[in-house]
Amino acid sequence: MKAYKGHIIFTKERSRFEIIENGYVLVEKGKVEGVYSELPKEAAQAEVIDYGDRLIIPAMNDMHVHAPQYRNQGIAMDLELLPWLDNYTFPEESKYSDIGYAKRMYSRFVRDLWRQGTMRTVAFATVHYESTKLLMELFKQSKMGAMVGKVDMNRNSPDSLTETVEDAIKYNEALIQEYNKEDSLVRPIITPRFVPSCTPELLKACGELARKYNLPVQSHLSENRGEIAWVKELEPDSANYGDAYNRYGLFGQTKTIMAHCVWTAGEELELMRRNSVMVAHCPTSNFNLSSGMAPIRTFIDNDISVGLGSDISGGHELSIFKMMVYAIQTSKMHYSADKSKPFLSLSEAFWIATKSAGSFFGKVGSFEKGYDFDALVIDDHELNHDNYPLINRLERFIYIGDDRHILDRYCNGEKVEEPVVY
Amino acid sequence: MKAYKGHIIFTKERSRFEIIENGYVLVEKGKVEGVYSELPKEAAQAEVIDYGDRLIIPAMNDMHVHAPQYRNQGIAMDLELLPWLDNYTFPEESKYSDIGYAKRMYSRFVRDLWRQGTMRTVAFATVHYESTKLLMELFKQSKMGAMVGKVDMNRNSPDSLTETVEDAIKYNEALIQEYNKEDSLVRPIITPRFVPSCTPELLKACGELARKYNLPVQSHLSENRGEIAWVKELEPDSANYGDAYNRYGLFGQTKTIMAHCVWTAGEELELMRRNSVMVAHCPTSNFNLSSGMAPIRTFIDNDISVGLGSDISGGHELSIFKMMVYAIQTSKMHYSADKSKPFLSLSEAFWIATKSAGSFFGKVGSFEKGYDFDALVIDDHELNHDNYPLINRLERFIYIGDDRHILDRYCNGEKVEEPVVY
Repeated sequence: MKAYKGHIIFTKERSRFEIIENGYVLVEKGKVEGVYSELPKEAAQAEVIDYGDRLIIPAMNDMHVHAPQYRNQGIAMDLELLPWLDNYTFPEESKYSDIGYAKRMYSRFVRDLWRQGTMRTVAFATVHYESTKLLMELFKQSKMGAMVGKVDMNRNSPDSLTETVEDAIKYNEALIQEYNKEDSLVRPIITPRFVPSCTPELLKACGELARKYNLPVQSHLSENRGEIAWVKELEPDSANYGDAYNRYGLFGQTKTIMAHCVWTAGEELELMRRNSVMVAHCPTSNFNLSSGMAPIRTFIDNDISVGLGSDISGGHELSIFKMMVYAIQTSKMHYSADKSKPFLSLSEAFWIATKSAGSFFGKVGSFEKGYDFDALVIDDHELNHDNYPLINRLERFIYIGDDRHILDRYCNGEKVEEPVVY
Repeated sequence: MKAYKGHIIFTKERSRFEIIENGYVLVEKGKVEGVYSELPKEAAQAEVIDYGDRLIIPAMNDMHVHAPQYRNQGIAMDLELLPWLDNYTFPEESKYSDIGYAKRMYSRFVRDLWRQGTMRTVAFATVHYESTKLLMELFKQSKMGAMVGKVDMNRNSPDSLTETVEDAIKYNEALIQEYNKEDSLVRPIITPRFVPSCTPELLKACGELARKYNLPVQSHLSENRGEIAWVKELEPDSANYGDAYNRYGLFGQTKTIMAHCVWTAGEELELMRRNSVMVAHCPTSNFNLSSGMAPIRTFIDNDISVGLGSDISGGHELSIFKMMVYAIQTSKMHYSADKSKPFLSLSEAFWIATKSAGSFFGKVGSFEKGYDFDALVIDDHELNHDNYPLINRLERFIYIGDDRHILDRYCNGEKVEEPVVY
């Protein structure tokens, strides 16, 4: 039994922070036993790890990120989604047929997630089996959690990224056999790229794989108006973009997360609610690709779960703390136009990034009893030049802090050391 | 004569970068002589400062920032402008009657500007004479450039920040006598806080001071819709908010910069154009305070000059590089709604932050002949993991770099060392 001592801050509910000054998180076999102001008698034998004046908070979860776009982080911001894919993204992803290149880039990507305090990730890899397997191995070595998707795509894509439906099934099955283990931190996720990249046959095959193995699903939804118009052309029988996934069993039939949902409304929104599809909100990417501003308050009001995604490299910012800032700013622009819907509060943004997002992995993202101990230790003494109250210390770290202020990282009860870069 | 060697990047025109790989900036008595691929014969005697594979770019200019809101950076993001002023900003600014507090905070503020590579600043101080003088001294010690305004305010303000018109004139005159010297890097700027804080008598006195000493003027304009409605009530005879400054000689009669201009349009915009009033665009602040998104493309199309401002603490982000990112993102949201107006390109954002903003100080912000040598040396080897082209190296530094990647800083030809913190 271990007791982590410091200033404990987390969100049980979205409306407010739980704050225990000079408190303890008690952890047994990787799971939180509880949080305390004073250690209870039954924990008298616990080893105390004393972090003194530092903050101890749940670790971050990145709910949408393209690992093979790592090289393009922070460049190529001059196009909208569809030409951006053709000109920058697909050429870069094609390089991942080279396992040496993949190892060099993927190991840096995993190291950078660690730096930013992201302990759980829902990632797109590429269409390539070998390098996807490598990414899963790198996550395993790192001892951080991840759901990794071999990307499936067979139309409107360059030859180098186009596969047959048979190969898609074969290579997915191979990864599933190897990695779909109940107690593993790194697991596969079914990943049709998006409707324009997948024939109905491929979408059908993806849905069948998800159902057969009860695997989670990720894809993109209603990011850009040009994209939505194209989906309407490609799938004229679908009532909306979401329905084009739903008819193939890829929209909540198993646990599903959809990135963006910038333009989701009406029947599509209702379908998401009914099918318990989670939104991966990627506000930075939505700005950078001129996509628009997703209606997060509307999702919350409709009991649709939301998490935050960096969406590297549409997004340039890997820190989920900065994603909270962008999510709040996005909701403030909606509020500016319609004051009947309040903007996201800091506790709401924090809750979205931790407990709400974490639910996709299980009991992750809170310090309530039974949750996996995923935590960050924040050393903000450099930012705390005037003895700020604890809540302001957290707020300042979120707004103006960076990886320099993250002292230690824990995932599933284990301290995570800096991953090796090859 | 000195020659700074490295990869030289700057913007002469907004439409494109000037890039000289392994080039030289030749500097004589603090002024740029020119940029070269090979040093010319007449520069054979120049001392070469060889920065090798690093980037050499113009330094940043922060065109709108509240120095006494330094403590509030990154906190208190839950209100709109007017209640935010009353609840967070005015109480903090009141503390600057204490010169010890001012010294502790202002010295940190100046140090942080240095860290972020901001070598010229247009700053609001507070209403207090002593601490405003202290801020000017700290800038002088730092050897960075600044226009510093003692804030003038005498209505709708807490008692602790309310002065008489006579005191406003007296203390402004005192600062002007001491600091208004032709060759000084640190100079006064006339600073009525904004119309709601200033009676017509005070605005008139400010306009007269500006004219009498030919001093620049700064204030706030059309930031928030509630504020605009209030100005209309307070100044019913003015055609618009800008006109309320104009009638008192505070809108281009001397060099003028107005922060925000989020809602500026129609006659106000035309008045700005006619009077050559510069916009200090503060996109981060405009998001944080739910103000809205300023129409920068419209200003540029109307030949209205624009610079970028961090607006600490409405803005939380002190880096002008990150302000470029926010400016581009803001313009992308306008583009998303109306595709007839292209979003800001990277070179445009860079030009706005450097040459366009710098024109407020004189010949600042470019490496053309005759410009003050204000420069940053960027060491991005940590970000350059895959041998990016120079333009992508700059883009990556702007998007994902930070103060760790700024190796050296120059202002007006002199290398600037880290300012002392008290």
